Amino acid sequence: MIIEKIAESRFNDSVFESKVFGKNFTDHMLVATYKDGKWSEPKIMPYGPLEFSPAAMAFHYGQAIFEGMKAYKNENEEVFIFRPDKNFERFNLSAKRLSMPEVPAEIFMDGIKTIVDLDRQWVPKNYGTSLYLRPTMFATEEAVSARSSHEYMFVILMAYAPSYYEKPLSVKIADFYSRSAQGGVGFAKCAGNYAASFFPTEEAQKEGYDQVIWTDSIEHKYIEEAGTMNVWVRIGDKLLTAPTSERILNGVTRDSLLNLAKDMGLDVEVRPIEVAEMYEAYKNGQLKEVFGCGTAVVVNSYNAIGFGEERAEIGILPDEESYAVRLKTALRNIQYGLIEDPYGWRIKIEESVTA
Amino acid sequence: MIIEKIAESRFNDSVFESKVFGKNFTDHMLVATYKDGKWSEPKIMPYGPLEFSPAAMAFHYGQAIFEGMKAYKNENEEVFIFRPDKNFERFNLSAKRLSMPEVPAEIFMDGIKTIVDLDRQWVPKNYGTSLYLRPTMFATEEAVSARSSHEYMFVILMAYAPSYYEKPLSVKIADFYSRSAQGGVGFAKCAGNYAASFFPTEEAQKEGYDQVIWTDSIEHKYIEEAGTMNVWVRIGDKLLTAPTSERILNGVTRDSLLNLAKDMGLDVEVRPIEVAEMYEAYKNGQLKEVFGCGTAVVVNSYNAIGFGEERAEIGILPDEESYAVRLKTALRNIQYGLIEDPYGWRIKIEESVTA
Ligand SMILES: Cc1ncc(COP(=O)(O)O)c(C=O)c1O
Ligand SMILES: Cc1ncc(COP(=O)(O)O)c(C=O)c1O
Repeated sequence: MIIEKIAESRFNDSVFESKVFGKNFTDHMLVATYKDGKWSEPKIMPYGPLEFSPAAMAFHYGQAIFEGMKAYKNENEEVFIFRPDKNFERFNLSAKRLSMPEVPAEIFMDGIKTIVDLDRQWVPKNYGTSLYLRPTMFATEEAVSARSSHEYMFVILMAYAPSYYEKPLSVKIADFYSRSAQGGVGFAKCAGNYAASFFPTEEAQKEGYDQVIWTDSIEHKYIEEAGTMNVWVRIGDKLLTAPTSERILNGVTRDSLLNLAKDMGLDVEVRPIEVAEMYEAYKNGQLKEVFGCGTAVVVNSYNAIGFGEERAEIGILPDEESYAVRLKTALRNIQYGLIEDPYGWRIKIEESVTA
Repeated sequence: MIIEKIAESRFNDSVFESKVFGKNFTDHMLVATYKDGKWSEPKIMPYGPLEFSPAAMAFHYGQAIFEGMKAYKNENEEVFIFRPDKNFERFNLSAKRLSMPEVPAEIFMDGIKTIVDLDRQWVPKNYGTSLYLRPTMFATEEAVSARSSHEYMFVILMAYAPSYYEKPLSVKIADFYSRSAQGGVGFAKCAGNYAASFFPTEEAQKEGYDQVIWTDSIEHKYIEEAGTMNVWVRIGDKLLTAPTSERILNGVTRDSLLNLAKDMGLDVEVRPIEVAEMYEAYKNGQLKEVFGCGTAVVVNSYNAIGFGEERAEIGILPDEESYAVRLKTALRNIQYGLIEDPYGWRIKIEESVTA
């Protein structure tokens, strides 16, 4: 790995006062390029613009995938990342579906560890804040021809993540637009899935909602996922989440919460959830909690659900009764290194580069 | 419009001997940028790389749309473009669905005319060849946050187009993968639709086919479109094409052929086409022609159709019996300025900039 350090760090404590997610980039980025069937040696260099042709294929045919992870710091200045193997695995699954080359562990995993170590002063210590890590790969071949590219770039970018969406969200259940098709790319973390979701989300925002809960594109009958979150529904004391599928992103947070919920002894079940079933539970007072989970938001409760024209307000439970709060706390405490991690999820970033 | 001409043209006749589509770019490109809610003055400048942040939102969230058009030259060195108003309209329809700003006519339409005029020596004269025009818009804001971008770039690129796919193609009818969902972005010419199609296409190629004919994502029962083509099916002497929908790109070539077919007195019908109906017609010898149409390929006959495991070979009709050939010839003759254009489709590019 080539390391070209920045001449003078741009770091300054006021970054941690920002309320903006994903705009305050750290000193360095990692770049590797793929050409003639092989990857270059990865290079860590000062963050900044690079030269690309406007004919770079990512701009035209959309071969672009990414991952989202976070680095956390505890009181002892120790830095951790969370289950990076899961993101690495999903990244290469996305790559395959988008007909892009796999990125080897020496670039993705070693890259993450090295660059987080190098920019460790950018990892904030305040509980709830973190450094967001963004591995991305996109097509760079200069060609306007509808086929997969022969050249790619892999980058790792890092930006400050303040505490996200602290207040409850309102979500509209999709009854017209769809996020993904059977036989499509819904399970892949590819750029096009997000672009396709913005307009429907903005339409929902005009109706007074923050986000959309996607449903199956055939009948809009089953709950799938929301924005950048997998969804949980608590009916009575039963906690439900939809199975992942070719249409739904297999979230790392979802998987972690499933484990935590089981180990807490909650009555948790993975099965398809009908919109009608949620509505009925709402009507008879059994819809106790609905929440989303994902790396960016961690866990976020919903206080209103749009069923067609009807806006169902859901009271937010007191912390001690809320499964969302219990799960969020358990997860965060592991992520921030505050409690033991019986799962082996937390990976400590050793100090080496900067030494 | 700002025009910064190249110091010395890179043009040289050998470009026209290339067999490669979309790699030989002309001397100039047009660039306009969108920021703070407005478009900059467009600038025509030498074609080449520009600086972009690896955090440019197009690389992450895929807001990117494009168009494909062609410029043709006749024996008298007159240059024409074909129905650019249709591409302009579709571009802004795509923009809306992808939550991107509209591009005004003064940038898109005037831009096309000016840059084609400026690089007119790059428009080849050989019948069947042309200059491919690629207007594109993509998100450039530097942010890793899943929402629509506040900044965009619009570019027009131009590259030599040799005579495309001269031989018949074999196509597999999709029975597992899908291109688009109901309520999705199939009707938009957005980057993500293409990225999603490459892997299924490559899988079909491993089975010995060139392309995929997409079907509805619910039951794989109805024909939709193929690669970058709308599809036509001739059963007996009836010519069928599927209606456009929110899942299918509304092709300019398709619309033009529909007009030509009607005016030729062909028995043409726009209605859903079942895969089963095609298969049955094949079995009883009535499947006379299947072909695709689009700007890049113009019209391309299919000589084999994959129905599940079965490869149905279709004889290619002699030219004088083929609707595909009749339609292709009529269309091309208008495009190349060889016959009168009763439709007002052909737009002559006046000489002004270069004068
Ligand atoms: C569409 C979508 N669903 C769900 C999630 C949650 O996945 P994870 O928990 O791995 O962050 C994300 C990512 O953040 C996402 O983009
Ligand atoms: C998916 C798709 N379908 C159909 C077509 C044909 O459209 P047009 O005739 O406007 O080129 C294209 C574009 O070339 C396309 O990309």
